[in-house]
Amino acid sequence: MQATTAPAFRVGVLGASGYSGRELCALIAGHPQLTLAFATANTQRGTTLRVRAGLAVHDIPLIAPEEADLAGVDLVFAALPHGASAEWVARALAAGTRVVDLSSDLRPGHGGAAHALPAGVPLDAPYGLPELFRAPVRGARVVANPGCYATSILVALAPLARAGLIAPGGTVSIASASGVSGAGASPKLELLFAEVAEDFRAYGVGNSHRHLHEMRAALGTLGADCDLLFTPHLLPATRGILSTITVPLTRPVDDALAPFRAAYADEPFVELTTQLPALAEVQHRNVVRIGAVVPTGMRSPTLLVFSAIDNLVKGAAGQAVQNANLMLGLSETAGLPQ
Amino acid sequence: MQATTAPAFRVGVLGASGYSGRELCALIAGHPQLTLAFATANTQRGTTLRVRAGLAVHDIPLIAPEEADLAGVDLVFAALPHGASAEWVARALAAGTRVVDLSSDLRPGHGGAAHALPAGVPLDAPYGLPELFRAPVRGARVVANPGCYATSILVALAPLARAGLIAPGGTVSIASASGVSGAGASPKLELLFAEVAEDFRAYGVGNSHRHLHEMRAALGTLGADCDLLFTPHLLPATRGILSTITVPLTRPVDDALAPFRAAYADEPFVELTTQLPALAEVQHRNVVRIGAVVPTGMRSPTLLVFSAIDNLVKGAAGQAVQNANLMLGLSETAGLPQ
Amino acid sequence: MQATTAPAFRVGVLGASGYSGRELCALIAGHPQLTLAFATANTQRGTTLRVRAGLAVHDIPLIAPEEADLAGVDLVFAALPHGASAEWVARALAAGTRVVDLSSDLRPGHGGAAHALPAGVPLDAPYGLPELFRAPVRGARVVANPGCYATSILVALAPLARAGLIAPGGTVSIASASGVSGAGASPKLELLFAEVAEDFRAYGVGNSHRHLHEMRAALGTLGADCDLLFTPHLLPATRGILSTITVPLTRPVDDALAPFRAAYADEPFVELTTQLPALAEVQHRNVVRIGAVVPTGMRSPTLLVFSAIDNLVKGAAGQAVQNANLMLGLSETAGLPQ
Amino acid sequence: MQATTAPAFRVGVLGASGYSGRELCALIAGHPQLTLAFATANTQRGTTLRVRAGLAVHDIPLIAPEEADLAGVDLVFAALPHGASAEWVARALAAGTRVVDLSSDLRPGHGGAAHALPAGVPLDAPYGLPELFRAPVRGARVVANPGCYATSILVALAPLARAGLIAPGGTVSIASASGVSGAGASPKLELLFAEVAEDFRAYGVGNSHRHLHEMRAALGTLGADCDLLFTPHLLPATRGILSTITVPLTRPVDDALAPFRAAYADEPFVELTTQLPALAEVQHRNVVRIGAVVPTGMRSPTLLVFSAIDNLVKGAAGQAVQNANLMLGLSETAGLPQ
Repeated sequence: MQATTAPAFRVGVLGASGYSGRELCALIAGHPQLTLAFATANTQRGTTLRVRAGLAVHDIPLIAPEEADLAGVDLVFAALPHGASAEWVARALAAGTRVVDLSSDLRPGHGGAAHALPAGVPLDAPYGLPELFRAPVRGARVVANPGCYATSILVALAPLARAGLIAPGGTVSIASASGVSGAGASPKLELLFAEVAEDFRAYGVGNSHRHLHEMRAALGTLGADCDLLFTPHLLPATRGILSTITVPLTRPVDDALAPFRAAYADEPFVELTTQLPALAEVQHRNVVRIGAVVPTGMRSPTLLVFSAIDNLVKGAAGQAVQNANLMLGLSETAGLPQ
Repeated sequence: MQATTAPAFRVGVLGASGYSGRELCALIAGHPQLTLAFATANTQRGTTLRVRAGLAVHDIPLIAPEEADLAGVDLVFAALPHGASAEWVARALAAGTRVVDLSSDLRPGHGGAAHALPAGVPLDAPYGLPELFRAPVRGARVVANPGCYATSILVALAPLARAGLIAPGGTVSIASASGVSGAGASPKLELLFAEVAEDFRAYGVGNSHRHLHEMRAALGTLGADCDLLFTPHLLPATRGILSTITVPLTRPVDDALAPFRAAYADEPFVELTTQLPALAEVQHRNVVRIGAVVPTGMRSPTLLVFSAIDNLVKGAAGQAVQNANLMLGLSETAGLPQ
Repeated sequence: MQATTAPAFRVGVLGASGYSGRELCALIAGHPQLTLAFATANTQRGTTLRVRAGLAVHDIPLIAPEEADLAGVDLVFAALPHGASAEWVARALAAGTRVVDLSSDLRPGHGGAAHALPAGVPLDAPYGLPELFRAPVRGARVVANPGCYATSILVALAPLARAGLIAPGGTVSIASASGVSGAGASPKLELLFAEVAEDFRAYGVGNSHRHLHEMRAALGTLGADCDLLFTPHLLPATRGILSTITVPLTRPVDDALAPFRAAYADEPFVELTTQLPALAEVQHRNVVRIGAVVPTGMRSPTLLVFSAIDNLVKGAAGQAVQNANLMLGLSETAGLPQ
Repeated sequence: MQATTAPAFRVGVLGASGYSGRELCALIAGHPQLTLAFATANTQRGTTLRVRAGLAVHDIPLIAPEEADLAGVDLVFAALPHGASAEWVARALAAGTRVVDLSSDLRPGHGGAAHALPAGVPLDAPYGLPELFRAPVRGARVVANPGCYATSILVALAPLARAGLIAPGGTVSIASASGVSGAGASPKLELLFAEVAEDFRAYGVGNSHRHLHEMRAALGTLGADCDLLFTPHLLPATRGILSTITVPLTRPVDDALAPFRAAYADEPFVELTTQLPALAEVQHRNVVRIGAVVPTGMRSPTLLVFSAIDNLVKGAAGQAVQNANLMLGLSETAGLPQ
């Protein structure tokens, strides 16, 4: 450990009172080479946010966004609501500061939003899913952090797509379930404990969910020519996403995990299991945990893939730090729980 | 209401301490034409089971199975563990008593178990899913009560199968999630609160779940020639099953619910919704609640179907009472929460 | 059952979209002698509320409060927020209609609010806790429905107070825990699933909770001269209140339940147990379930009393119907789940 | 940080498959000066336990207790069931190895058990609650780790006892609520998710709980002459204990927190708050978080004290490591989450 020689960077968090923002503050507090210069919040400005990092706790003052010294930091994490983020991305870039944007504003496929991007925000910000598209993230000035569902699904499908295993024109059917923190920390009736406990339901179905755009764009890049049918569900749990994915194959596979082993042998944040991945195994970790099974009794070659992530870590804040590490030239794994 | 002319029957429950057995006792206590003559339990024999029915509570003594007067009742509900049930079905039939068997022992497709059925237990007991196969249940002496997952899925698929809408050779992909009461009331580490809360995981995957046999058998009868890929999951909730089903179609449908409306117009226990069915809407009710969506952006005609039931009611005890009503010549809806 | 001779009354519900209001609509739908003429809601006006009653479900249209025909019903249940209710109570009384007010506006001890009561609202509306103060409720034109905590605690303390068992000047220490539905259905950050699950905390401590006023007033009436120390807590559960109460006694008791047996022998909605009452035993029932223990190793005579209710039934809607039954001359138990 | 000069010790865990044992393994894995030499389990022997520590995960093989090399380690943590532990404590001591015993077998006040202690196990093992009794723990060969409830309560009461603030002969009334992990990881019907969710109940009431003995013994040592009335409850949550304590005082206090500030100014693991402590604030941390309120409207001087801990950390494994640190001459805070 040669802490004295490691470069240190100052970073800020816009939107620190949401669940992703809180998680970002915790990760930064525990990061050996990042220092949190400011954290902003709207309604909770003036209060203090307590986060745990390693064995310590940190009390972080929340300031108003307008008070944030965007030019005084090396990188800003924008954990703002969709639609409200691009404006702040523009401000940070204008101040000469790097940005990881956790909203959907800059993600590929958001055509409508993209046309309305403020001046200075590139239409083609790199899509920050390092396991699939690492090169453009290194040294980038602005990165679009992927959606939580998209992360869980793309990491599961990419090895199959790249190996030409997904049947062209076939339907990849995806049932995902997410803990309620994925819906954010804004008070809504349908997110109350008394509404969520003992319930389970789908939402955003029929391919109407926002994350579908980026999944299609990314899969196209990877060479897959399939249809996606994506159905998210709301779990009576706080954090985690499990995606259960049916993939029609071009040819049978004997070893269900083989394509994943080949693709992810050197990836520190992808974990393969011969069992079935569960939320409890990935919570608070920056990993995608993948299992796969060749189902019996099928006439067409088919693979059943399971992918579990913590929606707030690998699905949001952890991945954002992973991207920041790459943008700043740090070790990709620095400060991330594995 | 002509209560004085309605016939009344005496019934018994074998296995009343499990979750299905408790629910059966509650439904019988509130049934206008059934009287509970006995309820048995093994380890809890000698204790009292309290159930609510309508506005009243009932305290039911639990006796040992050996003390049950099988010949003294008109019908026995066997809510015993799989494998242990057939033996008691044989005893009840030998005593001249009708039986609804809630285990999988007598269900179609259980070839291995069927060959080992005790003398007197028919190999072809009617499969008690009245919405699909009502005629053979009327007046039957023994009925195999369907599995909870099978109920939720078959009621969702049958109208499509009968209308020739399911693409032959296609893969019907089913992701189901069940509350933990579906796993029974026997103490297992993986069912402890501290293990289930905040977790979500699949189990019995790759087409290894017991209910697949009866689903395949029933769908064959209904004329479908598709492959099923069935993946159950364990929910951090107590009761309810939601099945999310992707169906490849032979032709496009404009109105996603049309096939269901045609099939279930007169069914008292099938409920269609233009919204998405949720567990909270079906708990404590003997209904299958179905929603359907035609997803956008698909090259092949595809339907997304949702089916919600209470696993302990329409998935077990409620359906058993529905079958008993038909077997005994009562109104099919008598005593059932709609 | 002589349904033809029973009088029937038309009632309305103001504030039907809250948790108490929904429960009221369900109870009225299942009540043999009440008909729901209207149900109002503010933000949810124009939508439909689905409730279950017995074996049936009912879909109830929600209208704006201004559309409610207050004069066209026999009784109005006001399930409106504290502070907003008295105004509507005045309107209903002016229209010649009876009122059960579920808010705290008319309860005893609410001195400040009382002085501000609109013209026509009596300062001394009977306190509708029939087990303790039944006579004034019979035939009353307006009744103040007790708070949920107050109900659970007063029913537990009254027999001891009336028997002169509570040590004068002593401290009765009360730790109560309530499910989150007690906090209402308005969206607040601290009631989100992700905030409530896995947490437990006190609130309104140091004798600052609203219900303390009515408890002190009622206990004074019952002859107790003790200090109350009341500490409510928020449970990660949806419904139910358990109060754990330490009572300093004037003299030792041998049989912990004896005072309660004597007081409540004929009460249909009080249930005594030699075990410890639990939330699961009272949910969806209009009962107070009481257990008591004489602790060992105490130098001063002390009783430990437990009291469990469903905060939405006996703590709100059920008790309101119980009061309405008395006001309208119906059987006190009509339509109430026991 | 001078890692090179810090002594390192080898330790073992007996009973690593329980909730406390798992937590111990995680803490040891993250401890800078402890190395886990073995971890034992009975039914799960031969499997692997995965724990997270800091940013890393560790997979720990579980061996049979008989295979453990007790003599080859510097200290053994015994996380075995009450009654089964003393035997293994004796073996470890005979092998010349230090022991922290997490069971109740060696705790003060366990008179019956004490008489049956195996040869070599001292009748007066230091009670390892360092905030109250630090000196005897330093360098001790065997330490009795306190119960989880006792920890939460004694740390809250000790400053009042030592300051002579607790009224002699008065009743200290304690209502505690614990997450279900406190009941251990053995499969019992009453700990199933379907039984615990949506329920809340007391147990072990009337001063019958095991932890009462050690609380009385410790309070006596601290000079308090009060009666304890301790009532534990089972929470529908996984981890954490909140104790709500009513204390009759000898004299009024103006500043509710003053006695705690004076006593715990230098304690790294005691946290005072002017708000009300909540489970969510202490989970996964080795702290006791204390709040206090002077209630209004009381004739006798009274203090209301709240104490929150994580039952598995400060209530078990964390405190055990804290004791081990003292026994081995390490920094008391080494490896502990604050």
